[in-house]
Amino acid sequence: MRTARVAMLREIRPPQERPFRIEEVEIPPLTEGAILARMVMAGVCGTDVHILRGQVPIQVPAILGHENVARVEEIGGEKPLRDITGKPIQVGDLITWLPKSCMQCYNCTILKDPSKCERRLGYGGWIPAWEHPYLVGGFAEYVWLLPGSDIVVVNDVAPEAVVLGDALRVMVHALDRIGGLDYGDAVVVQGSGAVGVMGALLAKDAGASQVIVVGGPAPRLDLVRELGADAVIDIFQAKAPERIARVLEMTGGRGADVVLEATGVPSAVAEGLEMVRINGRYVIAGHYGDAGTVPLNPHLINRKQVTITGAWSADNSHFLRGLALLRKLSPEALSKLVRPRFTLDEVNEALIATERQESVKAVITP
Amino acid sequence: MRTARVAMLREIRPPQERPFRIEEVEIPPLTEGAILARMVMAGVCGTDVHILRGQVPIQVPAILGHENVARVEEIGGEKPLRDITGKPIQVGDLITWLPKSCMQCYNCTILKDPSKCERRLGYGGWIPAWEHPYLVGGFAEYVWLLPGSDIVVVNDVAPEAVVLGDALRVMVHALDRIGGLDYGDAVVVQGSGAVGVMGALLAKDAGASQVIVVGGPAPRLDLVRELGADAVIDIFQAKAPERIARVLEMTGGRGADVVLEATGVPSAVAEGLEMVRINGRYVIAGHYGDAGTVPLNPHLINRKQVTITGAWSADNSHFLRGLALLRKLSPEALSKLVRPRFTLDEVNEALIATERQESVKAVITP
Amino acid sequence: MRTARVAMLREIRPPQERPFRIEEVEIPPLTEGAILARMVMAGVCGTDVHILRGQVPIQVPAILGHENVARVEEIGGEKPLRDITGKPIQVGDLITWLPKSCMQCYNCTILKDPSKCERRLGYGGWIPAWEHPYLVGGFAEYVWLLPGSDIVVVNDVAPEAVVLGDALRVMVHALDRIGGLDYGDAVVVQGSGAVGVMGALLAKDAGASQVIVVGGPAPRLDLVRELGADAVIDIFQAKAPERIARVLEMTGGRGADVVLEATGVPSAVAEGLEMVRINGRYVIAGHYGDAGTVPLNPHLINRKQVTITGAWSADNSHFLRGLALLRKLSPEALSKLVRPRFTLDEVNEALIATERQESVKAVITP
Amino acid sequence: MRTARVAMLREIRPPQERPFRIEEVEIPPLTEGAILARMVMAGVCGTDVHILRGQVPIQVPAILGHENVARVEEIGGEKPLRDITGKPIQVGDLITWLPKSCMQCYNCTILKDPSKCERRLGYGGWIPAWEHPYLVGGFAEYVWLLPGSDIVVVNDVAPEAVVLGDALRVMVHALDRIGGLDYGDAVVVQGSGAVGVMGALLAKDAGASQVIVVGGPAPRLDLVRELGADAVIDIFQAKAPERIARVLEMTGGRGADVVLEATGVPSAVAEGLEMVRINGRYVIAGHYGDAGTVPLNPHLINRKQVTITGAWSADNSHFLRGLALLRKLSPEALSKLVRPRFTLDEVNEALIATERQESVKAVITP
Repeated sequence: MRTARVAMLREIRPPQERPFRIEEVEIPPLTEGAILARMVMAGVCGTDVHILRGQVPIQVPAILGHENVARVEEIGGEKPLRDITGKPIQVGDLITWLPKSCMQCYNCTILKDPSKCERRLGYGGWIPAWEHPYLVGGFAEYVWLLPGSDIVVVNDVAPEAVVLGDALRVMVHALDRIGGLDYGDAVVVQGSGAVGVMGALLAKDAGASQVIVVGGPAPRLDLVRELGADAVIDIFQAKAPERIARVLEMTGGRGADVVLEATGVPSAVAEGLEMVRINGRYVIAGHYGDAGTVPLNPHLINRKQVTITGAWSADNSHFLRGLALLRKLSPEALSKLVRPRFTLDEVNEALIATERQESVKAVITP
Repeated sequence: MRTARVAMLREIRPPQERPFRIEEVEIPPLTEGAILARMVMAGVCGTDVHILRGQVPIQVPAILGHENVARVEEIGGEKPLRDITGKPIQVGDLITWLPKSCMQCYNCTILKDPSKCERRLGYGGWIPAWEHPYLVGGFAEYVWLLPGSDIVVVNDVAPEAVVLGDALRVMVHALDRIGGLDYGDAVVVQGSGAVGVMGALLAKDAGASQVIVVGGPAPRLDLVRELGADAVIDIFQAKAPERIARVLEMTGGRGADVVLEATGVPSAVAEGLEMVRINGRYVIAGHYGDAGTVPLNPHLINRKQVTITGAWSADNSHFLRGLALLRKLSPEALSKLVRPRFTLDEVNEALIATERQESVKAVITP
Repeated sequence: MRTARVAMLREIRPPQERPFRIEEVEIPPLTEGAILARMVMAGVCGTDVHILRGQVPIQVPAILGHENVARVEEIGGEKPLRDITGKPIQVGDLITWLPKSCMQCYNCTILKDPSKCERRLGYGGWIPAWEHPYLVGGFAEYVWLLPGSDIVVVNDVAPEAVVLGDALRVMVHALDRIGGLDYGDAVVVQGSGAVGVMGALLAKDAGASQVIVVGGPAPRLDLVRELGADAVIDIFQAKAPERIARVLEMTGGRGADVVLEATGVPSAVAEGLEMVRINGRYVIAGHYGDAGTVPLNPHLINRKQVTITGAWSADNSHFLRGLALLRKLSPEALSKLVRPRFTLDEVNEALIATERQESVKAVITP
Repeated sequence: MRTARVAMLREIRPPQERPFRIEEVEIPPLTEGAILARMVMAGVCGTDVHILRGQVPIQVPAILGHENVARVEEIGGEKPLRDITGKPIQVGDLITWLPKSCMQCYNCTILKDPSKCERRLGYGGWIPAWEHPYLVGGFAEYVWLLPGSDIVVVNDVAPEAVVLGDALRVMVHALDRIGGLDYGDAVVVQGSGAVGVMGALLAKDAGASQVIVVGGPAPRLDLVRELGADAVIDIFQAKAPERIARVLEMTGGRGADVVLEATGVPSAVAEGLEMVRINGRYVIAGHYGDAGTVPLNPHLINRKQVTITGAWSADNSHFLRGLALLRKLSPEALSKLVRPRFTLDEVNEALIATERQESVKAVITP
């Protein structure tokens, strides 16, 4: 009987209360099409913090960790498996896996938007850990991937880059929701967490003539500036009216063509709408949790004809498109974006570090 | 020396204070390309009421009336004139005219959106009435149209229909802003003023499978129901939560594909966002004036991925497209939509009637 | 042991050779989620004729008939079934069924276009009739629908209308491919078969200001004119240059905003590109079979900036949207659109009649 | 009386017949709003060669040269002038100018597409050189820019880069016609003239994951490869079927997401349609002249659902957006892209060199 060590979450409590406990879990035998993979790296997501704070509801016991890279150790059955691009999956391959949309519900089939799947199965918190196959999250030594999971073989991508793909795909989706950038757009990104930073790099690589990041704290702004953002505005140094004034000044008085929100703070939306130009586009991508309302002025939207929309998670196509950017990130860039690193035993520390927002992406390497 | 009687507005005061006074104004001689036209019918717009209440700022003295049909009486110079579609303009023609976008500013040339022209010239309140050519509004016996005005020959359209074209074009623009309806969309129209009613008829004719009008008072709802709306919800009979519940019920629990706002009431936006489905589209078209803020939830927009945008006035193409609907309106429908009728001397009564919101479109026929 | 009578196609031969033979086939017992339904009406499609002529390749023996309405006679297992909109399916319901996209292939999941599914399962010719469950086409007394089939409950739609939905959905898809009509568009439909006629009715109902059908023979043109087309041009009366000239004349010299091709004749594409205006849109929807090339001029496409695209079959959403139009068709209209009627024994006559192109939609009512 | 030396074209004859003759032309006094500018650099365009070959019709005598950079020497009148972005124009500024769309015709105002202006005024061949103000092309010492010309101040851009902007803006427009790239698109560019090369650099900078250039001769391919293209296919080395096979191989067997045509050769369109994936997009941008027809298969377009469109020249917004790329080109890149250089006296040599297609952009620096 083989077992795997996992960081088990048996009660929803904030990071500083150190809610995870390392437990030994039996590895079930593989069924046809299932995959057993040894974890290489798991990113800690802001959503994990929101889960611990009770702002994103899940059931416990749970094994978190939904930004994963692992190595295929065993494949169930004889039938050859393929990843979502059609590539064969083999023992030894480096893989990641995406939330599984049912492709049967109204949203998947009639709206044709798998990111809004009504019955999405998400590893790392949403698939129950109290029943077979138990090993359903990345904060662990092993994962047991269900037959039919949406796997991507990533042998040719650095694990650090793959881990960033979870945040990036939300921003690829955000651009998709507004029909992509027009070449030369001036883009403001609100927020300098992983989603914001990856959004800034994405916008730059997608043809923006100018990318301005509004966020904090300073170390994250310094990093995104170094990696390509044209300007940063520190929210701890400048208040909203000044931030708006600076964006207008940097965009010829007209405002940004596109503003991408990745803050989760309702007031950011009111602020961002002042930063966007007439007929500009505004995407709310940071409000995965419900943080309440903000007063907005319909006259402003009507007069400026801003297009506002939301980007909810992402679908497989967005992850795949994001790989183009992930492959371009240099080892130096990756080493600055993906840190600090924690062992599985330090999982509580990893969550505390993420809550402090000092780095872009903390990871666990068991 | 010829003169024309006009309803002069010398001071901004509410309708019930009867701010208009009939004055006799000299008709200036025509210059090359100018047109003198005798008014046939002028619609009274909700915006006229907003002007009198000081909610839409203009300079006085002014001659209001921007929904006009007139007959060409004289054309300045020898050069043949053409309307915006290329049709020749001749003495005796029935014409209307649209706000003149400069086609030189950034918004006209680079954004290519003449409805957001930075220097738009609007007859009926925005072109000064205190200087040549004075006769610049439709609440008058005559109008003096500047050379280069955007004229449309409407010999083949009933004057009552033309007058409705001003409200209709805003809704044609609203559909344009969201890429048009998809065939079979379920559409909610918020508001049953002229813009709302025309929006409902437009949506029905543009392929909506279902048009639900949320508004009041009852006579306007009865009319729009009679003219084609599939259902109406009276805001004086049902409160917001009930209205939302009824829309959801009528749309299979999913919400409307498209919601068109034509109320000018900020809280309608919060309500309407609850009525629209996942990935649905919401257009704010009724907030020409600034009526303040409303608390909105970014999480809702993010999660439902609603696309929200504004439609500000309209451009020439929207008016022309609207003619397709105006030509279909039967004399019976027109007689119910366009009433009551007032003479020029009754202009104050016309404004008072419009403020009471009892009919869809009051008109002045000098 | 129950049996069902079917029109079996054991050899690909042209209609006039009467290739169908009535056979008695055993009805297999239902498995969990399967449905046995008694055929009410099956439309004969132009594609069926193409199959018999060898222009659309299938394997024999086959049971054709993919435009079906049937009544649920029995449901396999105890689990409640739902149609693609979420409605429960019950014994006695009138149903139709659509080609089943796999929702797993690259085109379904990454391109998110189930109409281009790489492994589509189509009843009525593409699912093999030589193996379980045998009863896989509509030219039969009974059909045996596989578990997981894409069913639509159509109790509230006339069977004649449902049968027309197969042609209609292609045109709903065609509009979808060009982002829908803009309100008031002038539309040319090339072809007056079932797809063309339904396209004309659809365009009219989707807000076209003008619908011109170019086709033949005369009875079909008379019918589409009677049902709503604004003008028809008979290809047996006017040659291509004259047809082009007439369309230009009817569209103010500029050409149509949108041209929908539903002819299957390559030269129609060259002709249609002359009928469309600058920046207009052209959809090729009639070339399901390969009928060879036609000389086209890239300069024309470059200069006029026409957008040309194709619409291949349709997905479930297009069928559902089409229901809005199908529900509006009056019994009179349906009786003219759907005829002549044949019994199952007259299946060869039904195919011969369809090949003659005299009516819009011949049907078989066993 | 001041004069300017110009390369006068008095007869349409091929480059090798050396049709230009240097003449001395009087400089007319400036009127209000006119600008006299001393030429800094003029690009030689493939269109100039087409003009000399009689494939693009113009009237003679003419002064060619429509890819210009010049320094403002004198401004007519006292009124401050502004460029198309609102920037003041002052003596000493480096400027370029764009074709002037009338902004009054149907295409400018109703279609809102100034690139299809019905009365466009193009310097360098289309504005008559036989009447005031005579100095209307860039192959000259001086140009006399009409009041109201569409000027762009380009003090912060290298003249070599500005000259490339004429070809680039066509490709910015091409992307615009297909709604921009989706992030990570694989792009094929057909043609390695100035438009093709700039299209490749643009696609790369606009987020393409892969840019493949199909063209020749080798030196141009080497250059575009060096400047960023991921792969090149030499049409002198591989025939069409092999070129298609290689593109398919490089794109995972599916074909490119986007193909941009910049060849002017009709057969390239048939070839390119084989290179594009299902639901891909194809833009014809190289058929400014009419080079005849090519056999295309409507079934292919229907089945693959390719979107084909044209991009005709460009409008001001496209030039402005292109500046983002022009500013990124290094001096090294510019020195390779823009050569050889000729004096005004060598104008015939410049045209001969351009006809030989050995370099990307020959220029004249008087």
